[in-house]
Amino acid sequence: ALTPPDRAPRPRKGSNETMTIPETTPEATLPKGVKDFLPLKAAKIEYLQRTLRDVFAQWGFRPVIPPALEYLHVLEKGLGKGLREKTFRFDDRQSGRLVAFPTDITPQVARIVATRMRQSPLPLRLSYTGHVLRHVEQQAGKDREIFQAGVELIGLDSPEADAEMIAIAVESLKAIGATEFTIDIGQVEFFRGVMADLPIAPELAARIQEAIAHKDNSGLKELLDASPLDEAARREIRSLPRLFGGREVLTRAREAVSNRRSLKALDNLEKVLELLQVYDVEEHIVFDLGEIRGLDYHTGVTFQGFVPGLGRAVCTGGRYDGLAETLGGPSTPGVGLAMGIDRILLAA
Amino acid sequence: ALTPPDRAPRPRKGSNETMTIPETTPEATLPKGVKDFLPLKAAKIEYLQRTLRDVFAQWGFRPVIPPALEYLHVLEKGLGKGLREKTFRFDDRQSGRLVAFPTDITPQVARIVATRMRQSPLPLRLSYTGHVLRHVEQQAGKDREIFQAGVELIGLDSPEADAEMIAIAVESLKAIGATEFTIDIGQVEFFRGVMADLPIAPELAARIQEAIAHKDNSGLKELLDASPLDEAARREIRSLPRLFGGREVLTRAREAVSNRRSLKALDNLEKVLELLQVYDVEEHIVFDLGEIRGLDYHTGVTFQGFVPGLGRAVCTGGRYDGLAETLGGPSTPGVGLAMGIDRILLAA
Repeated sequence: ALTPPDRAPRPRKGSNETMTIPETTPEATLPKGVKDFLPLKAAKIEYLQRTLRDVFAQWGFRPVIPPALEYLHVLEKGLGKGLREKTFRFDDRQSGRLVAFPTDITPQVARIVATRMRQSPLPLRLSYTGHVLRHVEQQAGKDREIFQAGVELIGLDSPEADAEMIAIAVESLKAIGATEFTIDIGQVEFFRGVMADLPIAPELAARIQEAIAHKDNSGLKELLDASPLDEAARREIRSLPRLFGGREVLTRAREAVSNRRSLKALDNLEKVLELLQVYDVEEHIVFDLGEIRGLDYHTGVTFQGFVPGLGRAVCTGGRYDGLAETLGGPSTPGVGLAMGIDRILLAA
Repeated sequence: ALTPPDRAPRPRKGSNETMTIPETTPEATLPKGVKDFLPLKAAKIEYLQRTLRDVFAQWGFRPVIPPALEYLHVLEKGLGKGLREKTFRFDDRQSGRLVAFPTDITPQVARIVATRMRQSPLPLRLSYTGHVLRHVEQQAGKDREIFQAGVELIGLDSPEADAEMIAIAVESLKAIGATEFTIDIGQVEFFRGVMADLPIAPELAARIQEAIAHKDNSGLKELLDASPLDEAARREIRSLPRLFGGREVLTRAREAVSNRRSLKALDNLEKVLELLQVYDVEEHIVFDLGEIRGLDYHTGVTFQGFVPGLGRAVCTGGRYDGLAETLGGPSTPGVGLAMGIDRILLAA
């Protein structure tokens, strides 16, 4: 008991957990980054999980449950550098190998499809509800245990599949009671097209990418001014952070770039938008071609859902056509959506 | 791919997973003791979780969600030797302390009550749905990841609370479609009363306990014949494995023992039985006073649910009046029930 009862923190204004004035601070008994969910919040989590499972089932997605423990060498194949560094790992005294706790469920589902469901007819529509564990910075105060529910559509490389994921994201947010929200849509191939074949060192390319990712326009300008790039290339790159808004962004983007790869990405987004109009969800759609912070495995459309008052995305998704092969399966396209249960709770 | 496609194991007769002929054996990609649940089984697990949550909610139990990660020194307090040895543990690079994955959810709930919900009015009716990780013997082929859903009734030390748990066990089994099943009820205090104050070495007492636990009547007879115990004590001990059956067991037990502690345990069981008659569930009840394999923290009634064709319990429960204090809280009685989702799946 680090905090005597009379100095115990009072429930914050608006807190639902009025019954639970802590006698000991949670920090005293729990490792940083994990927490106990008491009845009011736990009931909300269960409600969210159930509601999302119902939406996923209505769209024809069937659940899978990947294990809480995997071999590190298998799990790592599906993870980019960022998540690899955040993976809890330890020696398994049974196998003598390193085992790990999942930091991302999508590669687990991709592994299941690439191995045990390899003979299943495609496309496969699979869903999951679970949690992942991620190391976080000591100071960040972020959660290490993250609750997610999501869907993966495996075996279709088409704007129809991309649009289906975004439509499910919209319907999921509506089902849990969100009214005002936006889905920001990006396309990693648009950015890769702009950056491909530039006569600059990889280090400079990485710094440019970082400036764009952080929407650091003045930093970006400095980097470009000091670069050996020609004016056309500079103009394309400088346009990226400004390609944010409604459907007119696609028109502006088409004027801003000339490489085939970026133009193909725009073709994809235009078809996705057409389909989203059929789904009647265009009011929630924003394009953001400067949004390039997708996970390392993304290969096409990416998207993030935002609700008012919360700076971080409540859902994320995107296309990952290379993941199955990375995990040892045949090359298989895929696109997925993950709803961040914790984030939704913060916004509720 | 350790198994070429044409030699891949065929789905077993009666298997529901006909779509999922494994291309690689699961052993090739996953650590022993964990597995992927493919859609048909995963959907069953989700159905079982949802159905059990509904039963628990109807009885007034509210969910809590304990974390997937705890400090080992906190978690261990609530575990007996058996589960301590099965706990996955490793260094937390953030805190520099050992952290661990829960092997049992009941002590986690007891910890929550003893700390963050210490000021909440009792009794508390709390439920959970989750999984635990346990090291298992290399050869055993048992699962390390175990799915459970359960309830804890904290703050009542009464036969009413004991009977409520057993009635919920019956209703839970009915809700998931079981028709023929039994709940075997034991009482650890009955056994402790028989064994208390005997003039024998702890080692012999432990061997006697083991023989009773394994219903090894001939081994038990040998141990007793070689012991310095008088005939009355031997008779009491020998009676234990035979005290199995319907309500008449309570009458026979009262004749078989004379110590106050065992008689008090029988008083408790008689009241529990009366209440179970009111709940109209007596047809499912069997008494088994030789059943002493409760978890180390049990202090009164214990019970296990069995369905035909499966040798192992599909649910377990019991009273644990010492757990809260062990975990640093004020002395608080408790009784709980855990449904074994994996076991139910095996029986389905």
